[in-house]
Amino acid sequence: MEDQSPKRIRCKAAVCRGAGEPLAIEEILVDPPKAYEVRVKIICTSLCHTDISFWQAKVSPVFPRILGHEAYGVVESVGEHVEGFAAGDAVVPTILGQCDHCTSCTSETSNLCDAVPPTMGPGMRRDGTGRFWDEQGNPLHDLLAVSTFSEYTVMDMNQLVKLDPAVPPKLGCLISCGGATGVGAAWRLAMLKPGSSVAIFGLGSVGLAVAQGAKMCGASKIIGVDLNPDKEKFGKAFGVTDFVNPSQLDKNKSVGGVISEMSGGGVDCSFECIGVPSVMAEAFRSTKKGNGKTIVLGLGNDKDEVRLPAQDLLYGKCIMGSSLGGLKPKTHIPILAEKCMNKELELDGLATHEVGMQEINKAFDLLLQGKSLRCIIWMGK
Amino acid sequence: MEDQSPKRIRCKAAVCRGAGEPLAIEEILVDPPKAYEVRVKIICTSLCHTDISFWQAKVSPVFPRILGHEAYGVVESVGEHVEGFAAGDAVVPTILGQCDHCTSCTSETSNLCDAVPPTMGPGMRRDGTGRFWDEQGNPLHDLLAVSTFSEYTVMDMNQLVKLDPAVPPKLGCLISCGGATGVGAAWRLAMLKPGSSVAIFGLGSVGLAVAQGAKMCGASKIIGVDLNPDKEKFGKAFGVTDFVNPSQLDKNKSVGGVISEMSGGGVDCSFECIGVPSVMAEAFRSTKKGNGKTIVLGLGNDKDEVRLPAQDLLYGKCIMGSSLGGLKPKTHIPILAEKCMNKELELDGLATHEVGMQEINKAFDLLLQGKSLRCIIWMGK
Ligand SMILES: [Zn+2]
Ligand SMILES: [Zn+2]
Ligand SMILES: [Zn+2]
Ligand SMILES: [Zn+2]
Repeated sequence: MEDQSPKRIRCKAAVCRGAGEPLAIEEILVDPPKAYEVRVKIICTSLCHTDISFWQAKVSPVFPRILGHEAYGVVESVGEHVEGFAAGDAVVPTILGQCDHCTSCTSETSNLCDAVPPTMGPGMRRDGTGRFWDEQGNPLHDLLAVSTFSEYTVMDMNQLVKLDPAVPPKLGCLISCGGATGVGAAWRLAMLKPGSSVAIFGLGSVGLAVAQGAKMCGASKIIGVDLNPDKEKFGKAFGVTDFVNPSQLDKNKSVGGVISEMSGGGVDCSFECIGVPSVMAEAFRSTKKGNGKTIVLGLGNDKDEVRLPAQDLLYGKCIMGSSLGGLKPKTHIPILAEKCMNKELELDGLATHEVGMQEINKAFDLLLQGKSLRCIIWMGK
Repeated sequence: MEDQSPKRIRCKAAVCRGAGEPLAIEEILVDPPKAYEVRVKIICTSLCHTDISFWQAKVSPVFPRILGHEAYGVVESVGEHVEGFAAGDAVVPTILGQCDHCTSCTSETSNLCDAVPPTMGPGMRRDGTGRFWDEQGNPLHDLLAVSTFSEYTVMDMNQLVKLDPAVPPKLGCLISCGGATGVGAAWRLAMLKPGSSVAIFGLGSVGLAVAQGAKMCGASKIIGVDLNPDKEKFGKAFGVTDFVNPSQLDKNKSVGGVISEMSGGGVDCSFECIGVPSVMAEAFRSTKKGNGKTIVLGLGNDKDEVRLPAQDLLYGKCIMGSSLGGLKPKTHIPILAEKCMNKELELDGLATHEVGMQEINKAFDLLLQGKSLRCIIWMGK
């Protein structure tokens, strides 16, 4: 009888051999999925600022490594005990797990699954081991137990979301991380309502997705804040109603103060999408007393501290944050996909560039130079 | 025809003539209520840390002044356009207004009425003028437009809550500020549920009221934190299940870390009832990732800054605060009164001492020496 179990696959991957070095397209070996794991053929992937942080070795400096965590793919094979996935399923990976059984997964609000808690280091979350090998048989580390810059990758079934096969691959890729974070923050964390006023600090992919989420919720005033004047046009395409360029304000005015004036005493909710502590404080300042919310979505450095006036807390202000915009990936990403298909949400514009896998380093250049929002990388090209 | 409109009243008040000076019982004159105002005969009042801050001139250093803001009284007369109040009604004052018509009052969450916004300075909130005069005809400033250390006082109808006349005066007094703040924070801001875990930093009146509020909501783990070992007994009487004395911990352990261990990764909600920025940071540290909430209820100094690790925000933690525990005074204080009458809440123990008006300075000594929770001051004695 022939052994039908999945074998090691030989395929191409973009390998990062050292901090800040261009990725090298190499032949690698990908192990079969172990129990509770799924092996996925990646169709397209995109580059996010989080990948850049790992690439620059700002966090978890471990190399050689296969980066990438935003993607769309198709299930190739499944390991033992995997339920709910079969070869051919359309899927997107997520950096957060969802087991649906733990205290966090069954709570209304937390999206940090206790069963597969996120770690920054490499290694699959159940056993800490890797699934990638170079041609010499040396291990290649993964990124967040996802690693999508490879034609094939292995993921825990808790970190994989099944999508309607009608969802276009590019859209699936956009809502697997950045798009989900922005829309989720407006929709699920801020719980914006018709007529809400918001301020968005930083109009990158996440900030623009916040604008779309705010528009979807019926927000009437959506103030975009960015130092780059080109972002005014981008912002308006995504639903921004007013634009503030902090570099063009009077020297004696703070952005927070200006936004507070523009919104009659402060916005209902502000979003910090850059990861700069002083900007977090301005975002907090721009919200209204009574029940203003500030939502932090960016992180520059894992040691960063944010400083806030305690009195403003007593006046009813709140500051919070989240990974993935507070979304529970398996529950909410399919809903986002549906909303995009229905045109309730318009995220296609986030994909400003497209390249083949061979040109993956161009995606890095574009993002580092601030020329792209998301560059889609097609693995078969 | 005789003029039936209310006249100036001559009565006794405890007047503060200078920062930190003992109060002097003086004969004063109290104007009749103007439009939208109510004149109230104070039955009993109590001393709160907020009074101490004004007395020490830490905020709004204006003298001579009549302090006091926690009280129970009876309506003596009403001004023009006053609806919903008549002579003889049982009432408690509140530092926050509620007009029931503005954006904040009609929102679900804000309790900072836009119509009569709180100010720290003296003066009635509609016209900025005062209602008190000494025997020489010089003005006596008010406190937060309330001033309850007087046999008669004048308040805006928006800062007055009508109570069921069956509510005992002492109870009314306890739930007019401190008790409401603590219970409200657990009930309305934290929205604790059966099985919730909480940590309370500082077991003064507010902290003990938080414990009662948490118990009422069904919290199963209520960790009290205080440097005073006597507070363990007090805490347990109010529902505290576990007590931590930070001065008795190993030098290499933080309170936040210890509480996190005691609660399997952090409590659902922590409450800071002291007003010390470093304690706010420990309270934040003691909450769990995913959806842990920190609620700030104390303020030491209006310039204080709280410093928080930005990464913990990204992990889903939240910090917020409020005045009056997030309660809308007219909506919620009568509900608290009812819950106390039904014994769902037990706040009577907060009244540790009682004195007559003549001995009001004893109430200051007791609170400053940490010997009392609330000292009830009976105005007729
Ligand atoms: Zn889970
Ligand atoms: Zn990402
Ligand atoms: Zn109002
Ligand atoms: Zn008070």
